[in-house]
Amino acid sequence: MSGTLQLIRSQRPLVHAISNFVTANFCADILLAAGASPMMTDDAREAAEATQLADALYLNIGTLNDNSIRSMLLAGSAAKEKQIKIVFDPVGAGATQLRTKSAQKILAELQPEVVKGNLSEMLHLSGIKNVINRGVDAGSVSLKDDIIAETLKAFAKTHHCIAIATGRRDFVTDGEKVAVVHNGTPMLECVTGTGCALGALCAAAAATGKELFCLQLDAVLTMAIAGEIAITKISHNDCGTFKTYLLDAIGNLTDDDLNHRGKYEFLA
Amino acid sequence: MSGTLQLIRSQRPLVHAISNFVTANFCADILLAAGASPMMTDDAREAAEATQLADALYLNIGTLNDNSIRSMLLAGSAAKEKQIKIVFDPVGAGATQLRTKSAQKILAELQPEVVKGNLSEMLHLSGIKNVINRGVDAGSVSLKDDIIAETLKAFAKTHHCIAIATGRRDFVTDGEKVAVVHNGTPMLECVTGTGCALGALCAAAAATGKELFCLQLDAVLTMAIAGEIAITKISHNDCGTFKTYLLDAIGNLTDDDLNHRGKYEFLA
Amino acid sequence: MSGTLQLIRSQRPLVHAISNFVTANFCADILLAAGASPMMTDDAREAAEATQLADALYLNIGTLNDNSIRSMLLAGSAAKEKQIKIVFDPVGAGATQLRTKSAQKILAELQPEVVKGNLSEMLHLSGIKNVINRGVDAGSVSLKDDIIAETLKAFAKTHHCIAIATGRRDFVTDGEKVAVVHNGTPMLECVTGTGCALGALCAAAAATGKELFCLQLDAVLTMAIAGEIAITKISHNDCGTFKTYLLDAIGNLTDDDLNHRGKYEFLA
Repeated sequence: MSGTLQLIRSQRPLVHAISNFVTANFCADILLAAGASPMMTDDAREAAEATQLADALYLNIGTLNDNSIRSMLLAGSAAKEKQIKIVFDPVGAGATQLRTKSAQKILAELQPEVVKGNLSEMLHLSGIKNVINRGVDAGSVSLKDDIIAETLKAFAKTHHCIAIATGRRDFVTDGEKVAVVHNGTPMLECVTGTGCALGALCAAAAATGKELFCLQLDAVLTMAIAGEIAITKISHNDCGTFKTYLLDAIGNLTDDDLNHRGKYEFLA
Repeated sequence: MSGTLQLIRSQRPLVHAISNFVTANFCADILLAAGASPMMTDDAREAAEATQLADALYLNIGTLNDNSIRSMLLAGSAAKEKQIKIVFDPVGAGATQLRTKSAQKILAELQPEVVKGNLSEMLHLSGIKNVINRGVDAGSVSLKDDIIAETLKAFAKTHHCIAIATGRRDFVTDGEKVAVVHNGTPMLECVTGTGCALGALCAAAAATGKELFCLQLDAVLTMAIAGEIAITKISHNDCGTFKTYLLDAIGNLTDDDLNHRGKYEFLA
Repeated sequence: MSGTLQLIRSQRPLVHAISNFVTANFCADILLAAGASPMMTDDAREAAEATQLADALYLNIGTLNDNSIRSMLLAGSAAKEKQIKIVFDPVGAGATQLRTKSAQKILAELQPEVVKGNLSEMLHLSGIKNVINRGVDAGSVSLKDDIIAETLKAFAKTHHCIAIATGRRDFVTDGEKVAVVHNGTPMLECVTGTGCALGALCAAAAATGKELFCLQLDAVLTMAIAGEIAITKISHNDCGTFKTYLLDAIGNLTDDDLNHRGKYEFLA
C-alpha cells in the first residue's frame, strides 16, 4: 500500500496542465477533488516560468495547435531542469498526421516519465498501424492481452517510461512488470474527458515522489473505482448524474478503497 | 416514426465539431449521452484530415477566430468531398460584422445541409435587420409566426438547406413544409450551450443518413422534450440540477418518447 | 438593502466576458443562474463592437495570450467610451512576469472600476512581493487583517477602484471603508472557477448602475452565501454535487437571503 491518495491530499501538489479546451474544466475539477491543485496556461511566453512553480507537468494534445505544442516543449524543458515528472497524453495519435508527429516529437524531445493513452493511441505509437482509430475513441481493438502487454512493455522500455493504455481493461507497465486492471465501468466513456482527467490524476500522483509504477497503478485504480462507485448511484444511462457522482467519488475515495476494491493481476 | 435516436445509438456516428471553447465540453457530453461520438479539433493543419474520419461535421462560430474560420472552411471542403452532412450554427450572426460576414462566407462557400440558429440570428441572415440581438441571446422578436415561417422558408430555399430557428417556439423547414415545435421549457435558456448542443445533436442525427427533414425535427424534439423531462425533477430555478438532469434525459430518451410527447404542427 | 439580485434579474444585463477557456462555461452558467446574460468572444477584430452591445465588461487573464490581451485593451476602450463598468480579475498576477505585466498594463490603460483577485494576487499588485503564490491558488498569506485592509485601501485609492480580495475572509474596499466578509466555505476552493465566476457576478452587479461599493459587497455575499447553502446539502467532500447545488443556490438566492445571512464588518 503506497497511500497515494493520502500523499496527494497532504502534499497538495501543483499540477501544471497544458491541455485542451474541451476537458480543461473537468480535469481541474478532478484534480481539486483529489486534493491536488491545477494550473492551466498555454501561452509559450510563460510556459517555462509557470512550470518552475509546479510539482508535476501534464501535457495533453487534445486540441493541439502551434502555440500549445511550442508551450509544451518549453514547459517540458523547464520540467526536466526542475526534475519534476512529465505525464503525456497523446490524444488522437494515429488519427491525424499532425497528432502522430506531435506525439512523436514530444516523446523524443521530452522523454516523459509517464505516457497514458487509450489502447489504440498507444498501439499506434508502438508502430501497430492497422488499429481502428475513431477520433479520440478507444476504437475496436481485438488483440489478445498478451500481445498488448508485450507491445506496451516494448514501448515502455524504448521510451524509458511508465506506459498506460486504457480501454475495457487498463494496462500499466514499466517495461518489466505489466498490471492489468479489471476495475471500471463503460459509463466512464459516456462522459467527456475521463481519459484526460486520468492523465491529470497520473500527474498528481507522480508529483508525490514515491515509486512511480505503484503511483500510476493507483491513479488508474482511482478513476476506475470512482466510476464503479458512481455507477451504483444512478439509473440506466444517467450521464449527467454519473459525471457529478464521479467527482464526488474521487473526492471521498481513500487508499483503503483502492486496496479493498482494486482488481488487477500481473502478467508474466 | 424515423427511429432517429435508435439510429444514432446503433450507428454511433462520429461528429467532428469545430465549435467554441465555452460550450465544447457540454456539446461533447450531449453527443455521448445521445449515443454519438465527438471529435473536436480546430487546428487548420488537421481540419481536413480529421473530417475524413467523421460521419458528420458541425460548425459553430461561438468563439470564432482567424484560425477556426480557416479550419471550418477546410473541414467543410473535406466534408463535401466525403459527402457527409454539414450542420452550421451561426452564433451571434447580426451581433458583430465579423460574425455576420463569417456566417455569410460559410453559407456561400460550404452550403451546409442544415443551418440552425436562434430566431434573431436566422432572421438577420435572412436580411431582416431590425431584429433586437443581444449577443448570443434570442432577443425579443415580435414577428408573427406566419411571417417567420415565410422568411425561414425563403432562407431554406435560397441556401438549399434545412433551416432551424429556436426560440419560444422552434421552427424547422426544408423550404416547402414548416414544422413549429411547441415542446420545450424556458429553463433551457438558463443553461449555457443548449443551443450549441442542439446543433451537435442535429449533426449526429444528420449522420444517420435518413430523410433529413425528419431527422432534424427529431433532433429539435429531443432537446425540447429532454428539457421538459428535466424540469419535472427540479424546484424553481435549480439551474445546476437542471443541467445534470438534461444530460440524464438525453441519455434515456427513446423514439417512443418523441412520438408520444412531441407537440408540433405544420404551417401551410 | 440595495436589492442587487432583484436588479440583476429585472435588468438582465449583458456581460461581455473576455475570460479563460478553463472556466468560461461555469462563468456563463453562473451569470445565467443569477439572471444576467453572458457574451463571450475573444477575437480582437470584434472586441470593441461586441462591447458596444454590453452592459458591463469582465476581463480575466486566466489563460491570457497575445490575442486576448489585445482584445481586452480594445474592449476596455470601447467600455470607457460607452461608460459601462469594467471588472478585472488579475488571475495569477505574481505567478509569472507575463501575468504581472499584463495585469499592470490593464490597470494602467483601462483603470477598471472593480479589481477582484485572490488575496495573494491583490497583494502582489499592491507591491508586496514576498507573498507565497502557487499558481491560481490563494496560497498562504499570514498578514494581519488590518495590514491587509490598509494595503487594499491604498490599492483602491491609487487605482480609483473598488478592490476585492478573496480568501478565508473576503475584503471589499473603495479606498475609504473596508468590509470584511465572514461568509463562505472552504468547499468553494474545491470547484474550479468559483473565483472567476465571482468576477462575472461582480460585473453583472456593476451593470445595474447603483452605488458600486454596495453592489460589489452584495456580489461577494452572493457567492459566499450560495456556497454556504450548497454545503448544507452534501456529504463530506462531494465536489460534484457541491458545484451543482452552488448553481442552484445562485439561481434561488434573494436579496432577503443576503440581508439575513450576510456576516460582515467594517474595519475602521
